[in-house]
Formats: sequence, C-alpha cells, structure tokens
Amino acid sequence: MEGLYIDLGKDSYNIRFSADYTEGLKQYTEIDAPSVIITDSNVDALYGKAIAGLLGAHQYKYVIPQGETSKSIDTVTEILHFMLDKGFNRSSRVIAFGGGVVGDISGFVASIFMRGIDFYQIPTTLLAQVDSSVGGKTGINFPQGKNLVGSFYQPKEVLMSPSLLATLPKRELTSGIAEVIKYGVIYDYNFLKYIKESLKAIYSIDTEVLKQVIRRCCEIKAAIVTEDEKELGLRKILNFGHTFGHAVEALTGYAVYTHGEAVMMGMYHEAAMAKALDLIEETYFCEIAGIIGDTGISTDLKSLSLDLDAVVTRMSGDKKNRAGKISFILPIARGKVQELLLTTEEIKGLILV
Amino acid sequence: MEGLYIDLGKDSYNIRFSADYTEGLKQYTEIDAPSVIITDSNVDALYGKAIAGLLGAHQYKYVIPQGETSKSIDTVTEILHFMLDKGFNRSSRVIAFGGGVVGDISGFVASIFMRGIDFYQIPTTLLAQVDSSVGGKTGINFPQGKNLVGSFYQPKEVLMSPSLLATLPKRELTSGIAEVIKYGVIYDYNFLKYIKESLKAIYSIDTEVLKQVIRRCCEIKAAIVTEDEKELGLRKILNFGHTFGHAVEALTGYAVYTHGEAVMMGMYHEAAMAKALDLIEETYFCEIAGIIGDTGISTDLKSLSLDLDAVVTRMSGDKKNRAGKISFILPIARGKVQELLLTTEEIKGLILV
Repeated sequence: MEGLYIDLGKDSYNIRFSADYTEGLKQYTEIDAPSVIITDSNVDALYGKAIAGLLGAHQYKYVIPQGETSKSIDTVTEILHFMLDKGFNRSSRVIAFGGGVVGDISGFVASIFMRGIDFYQIPTTLLAQVDSSVGGKTGINFPQGKNLVGSFYQPKEVLMSPSLLATLPKRELTSGIAEVIKYGVIYDYNFLKYIKESLKAIYSIDTEVLKQVIRRCCEIKAAIVTEDEKELGLRKILNFGHTFGHAVEALTGYAVYTHGEAVMMGMYHEAAMAKALDLIEETYFCEIAGIIGDTGISTDLKSLSLDLDAVVTRMSGDKKNRAGKISFILPIARGKVQELLLTTEEIKGLILV
Repeated sequence: MEGLYIDLGKDSYNIRFSADYTEGLKQYTEIDAPSVIITDSNVDALYGKAIAGLLGAHQYKYVIPQGETSKSIDTVTEILHFMLDKGFNRSSRVIAFGGGVVGDISGFVASIFMRGIDFYQIPTTLLAQVDSSVGGKTGINFPQGKNLVGSFYQPKEVLMSPSLLATLPKRELTSGIAEVIKYGVIYDYNFLKYIKESLKAIYSIDTEVLKQVIRRCCEIKAAIVTEDEKELGLRKILNFGHTFGHAVEALTGYAVYTHGEAVMMGMYHEAAMAKALDLIEETYFCEIAGIIGDTGISTDLKSLSLDLDAVVTRMSGDKKNRAGKISFILPIARGKVQELLLTTEEIKGLILV
C-alpha cells in the first residue's frame, strides 16, 4: 500500500505515500549540492515557515506568485538565474512543493537546467496528486495559449501526503474530485461506485480513504500513460469532460471557474450527449449526473449564463480537432469511453440547454 | 556509404549523405503543417536566396544574428513567439541550416515547442558535421556560462552535404579539423594516419574524402554516445584537448580564437603533458604534434602571449573537476586515451612553456 511503482523503463519512479511530508523534503535536499524547493505564495503562507525551518546550507526556497500567470517564460528565466547565481550544478535537485502550476514550472526548469537534473514532487492539492504526479508533462503558457511550451520529464520520486489536503480550500478539493470522477468513468466502474460512497469521507479529509482514492487514480493514469507516453493514442481518453470544459474555461477567461469545476460541467454535458446519442442508457447517465450533483457543482448552462453557441464556437479551436470536426471522449458503457468526432451542428442538437 | 544509422532505440535516426542540400530542405518542409528553417546571418548571406526560392506557403525562414550571442533565452523566446503566431502545431517541424549555434538553438526550440516536435539538421560547417550532428545536445548560454540550459534531443534525420563546405572560410574549416583529429587520437589510430594523408584534400574540399572523414567521425562519436547517452562515463573522452582549450577560450573572452583553434592548442599541450608523464612515447607525441602543425595553428604559449598561470587558474573552474583536482583526458597509447586528475601544481610542472 505504501508505494506505487510507475514503470517507464529507465525513467521509472516511485510514488511514496507518507503521512509526514517533512520526511520527504529533508531526504530530497540532503545532497552534496545546492537544491531548491519551489512553491507558490499561497502554499508558502501555510507551510513556508515549516519549510524554512528544515533548510540547511545551500538549500533554498523559491516562492512564485500563486496562479496561472506564473507559468511564464519570465518566471522560468528568473528561476534559472537564481539557480545559476547560487552555484547549482548537475547534481543539484529541484523539488516542487505545491499544486499543478508549481509542478509544471518546476518540472520544466529541472528538465532544461544543464540539460536535465533530478526532479522531485510533493503535490499539495488533490488535483496535482491525482493528475500531475503521473504523466511527466511539464509546461508553461504563452500569450497565444496554455501549455504551448514544455517537455516530457519524469520525476525521480513523488511524495504523496494526503494530510496536506487538510489546508486545501473546499473549492480546490472539488476541483480535484472532478478528475477523480473522470478516472472512474473512463476506466473503472467499480471505482466510480467507490467514489460515490466515499465522497463525504473525501470532503472530511479521511486520509485512509484519500490514500485509496489517490492510489487508484495514479494506477489508472499510469496504466494509460505507460502505454502511450508521448500522447499518440490511448492517452486521449483522459480528455473526457475536457472538450466542453476547456471551452467554458477559455470563454470565461480562466477567471470564473476552476479547472475542475469546468471539467465537472464538461463531464455532465458530455455524458448527456452520450445519452442523447444512445451510447449509454439513462440509468448510467443518472449515476454520473448523481455523483457530479453530490459535489454541489452547478451544471445548468442557463443558470450559469453560458451561451451554448459561444461554447461550441470555442470548441472549434481545440487542438485535438481533426478534419473540421470536434473531438469528444464519450462514455459508451460503464467504465468505458471512446472518441467521437462531431460537427458543431451535431453538437448543438445534442447538448442540454 | 550513403547513410549512417544512429541506433538509439526509439530515438534512432539516419545521417543521410547527399551532394544536394536542397533535396533535403524540400523533403523536410513538405508537410501538412507550418515549418521553419532556422539559419544565421552569415549562412543567409550565402544561401538565403536559394532557400527562399524553395519555400511554399506556411514554410518559413528565420534568420538569427551569427555568433554565440544568439544562443540566448531571448532568441529562443522570439522564435517560439514567431512559431505560435504563424500557427505552428504538433506536426510542425524545425530545420536547422547552419553551424553549431544554429543547431543548438534550433534543437532546443524543437525540444520544448508543444513538448517536442520533429527536428531536422543540415549542418553547414565541418565542426557541426562531425560534432553537433551526433549526441543530441542542445543548449543556450546564460550570463553565468555557456550551455547551462538545454536538453538532450535527437533529430529525425541529419542531411550531410560536404559540398556546403566550399563556402566555409579556411579558419572555420580548421576549427572543424581540430575535432576530426581528436577522433583519431581518442579512438582510431588508423583514422589519425588517414587524416594526416588527407589534410590537403580536406582543405581543397574534396567531397569524396570529406565524406569518408565526416562519416568516420560520426561513427566514432555514435559509438561513444550510444554507450553513454546522458554523459555519465565514456563520453568524457570526447573532452580530449578541451580542458586546456576551454581555459584558453574563456581567458580570451571567446573573442580571439575559434573553438577549434583553442582545442588544437589544447590537444598539443595535453599530448605534451602525456609525454612528460611517460604515458606515451616521444614518437607518438611527434605524430600528433605533426598533424596539428600541418594545420598551421600556432600552439606556443609565449608567442601567443598566453600566461600559463592564468590558463591553469581558469581550469580550476571547470565543471568536470573532482575533489579539487582538474580532469584531463590524456593519450596513453595510439588511438587510446584515459582520464587523469591532476592538481594545479602538477599541471604547471608538465606544460611546455
């Protein structure tokens, strides 16, 4: 139960579960070279003092402003300068202590500093724990779009400490739960039922239940990405809920909904499309809709003042589209999904308004 | 004879020899996505018009200023913006048409654009043909030092066209010959003898001889780096001549000597150290010194106004040093070298002044 081995040949690594994150921090920085713990201003307000207390000589903390705007080439350049000024070398390490943004930037910096140095991850959000800790994607945003520049780079180890979630705002927890539900729908119906039963325990930060949930999500993601490390085929099933979700996020300037809230809406409407297409039966649709409803996220476009035409227009710009059609991952049976390409007209006839 | 396969598992690629570089350019850009040929101002003055004549819709030429100063994060950011503004996607390609600087930047850009897109190389200098086309090193400079940021990234194909060397200034040709001689000393004594016999043919751009020479250099480098892709052990033998050479380059602000001229001096003085240490006999030292002499490069520190103490002090900052000692790759027999760690005092007693 304590570890999960991600088998990627020479890039393999271990996900270690531990109640005490400081244990990992100490171990990762105890080397004969400078190391840096990268975190953001939110996490620093909660854990900064504790981290600072652990740091010895040549062990640094680097705090970036919280939020997506930090995922820029400027932040990356500043961190690289910091490391070079402090005499970092090929034996140095980068440790990400934070959510997805911190992980994405830290991993990218580690992947290009002296052509790649060791990278460790201690995810502090449920979303990062179930999503960013497996897959090796790093990236930054450009004014032209999100995650347009980055690398595939695997950590040396991930330290998973569910107790860190005790300080996570409920809204951020829900954002992670969206991805958790996704794993159930795309891969494992029994897990989906377990999530439904465990939702209260998750929200009350029952670390034993969280351990089971996080572990199963990582297992599923690992099974998918080890088969498809460079995102050529199978990996696209991870996009369930995301075609619709991304469009909502982009349409609202990434400022109104969290990624998870948008994905939650996306999963609801994409499941409804599957039902309208007779790919799944009504009872299964209601199961999915029920779990989403239990999280308290509103999915009704009208009450959210979201315009269907505008959402569909946004989908037309998705980089996963082919031959003028929009790519959707839709449920076709319990724990099973499939890609479908649809025209904007077809979509408009399918979405519930 | 026409191709050389570099076996790196799923990152394998082919080095194709061709008298006509335009054939490769056309083939590499003929895709259903935007592509860019990156070159520098020097090469553009010679081949820019010919390249422009080959470009169709969504095929771009991007010219960077010639020289090391282009190897900056700013240049990389500008190229990334250019590609994003032109609608480049995951199917797009980057083609490097130039020397080492162009190859290093282009490869780095290709490795991080949308987490890695296809990269092709058409090296236009002898140094790039025998050195940069095998090994997968990409990189840029920071004010703190050279090649401090980059990635390991393999091209999809390298097009080797020795006839491109006809426009190369003699001094640049000599710079490449330094690395050619190095391959003979570190790995293949028969090749070293062949180089001595072929020096005139090389300087007169005999494309048949150049083909043999370039091919053998690439074979040797491939044999070394496929055994040691991430630079952990064997690959360090490629540093013969470079401990001394890098110190001379750094001491003179990278402005007085080409890389190859500095390496030529380095090989001479490091071979002399090996002789002083009785690692090699006088006759073999004279063979090495003779070939270097044939290139017309001056190696005498006094006549070059280089101060031995200053050179040795510079070596102390080399990143390959261990335990306070300086790492040298020294010849120990014909076609064989070995690493030796020496103190600054030991070095001063060994170098010819």
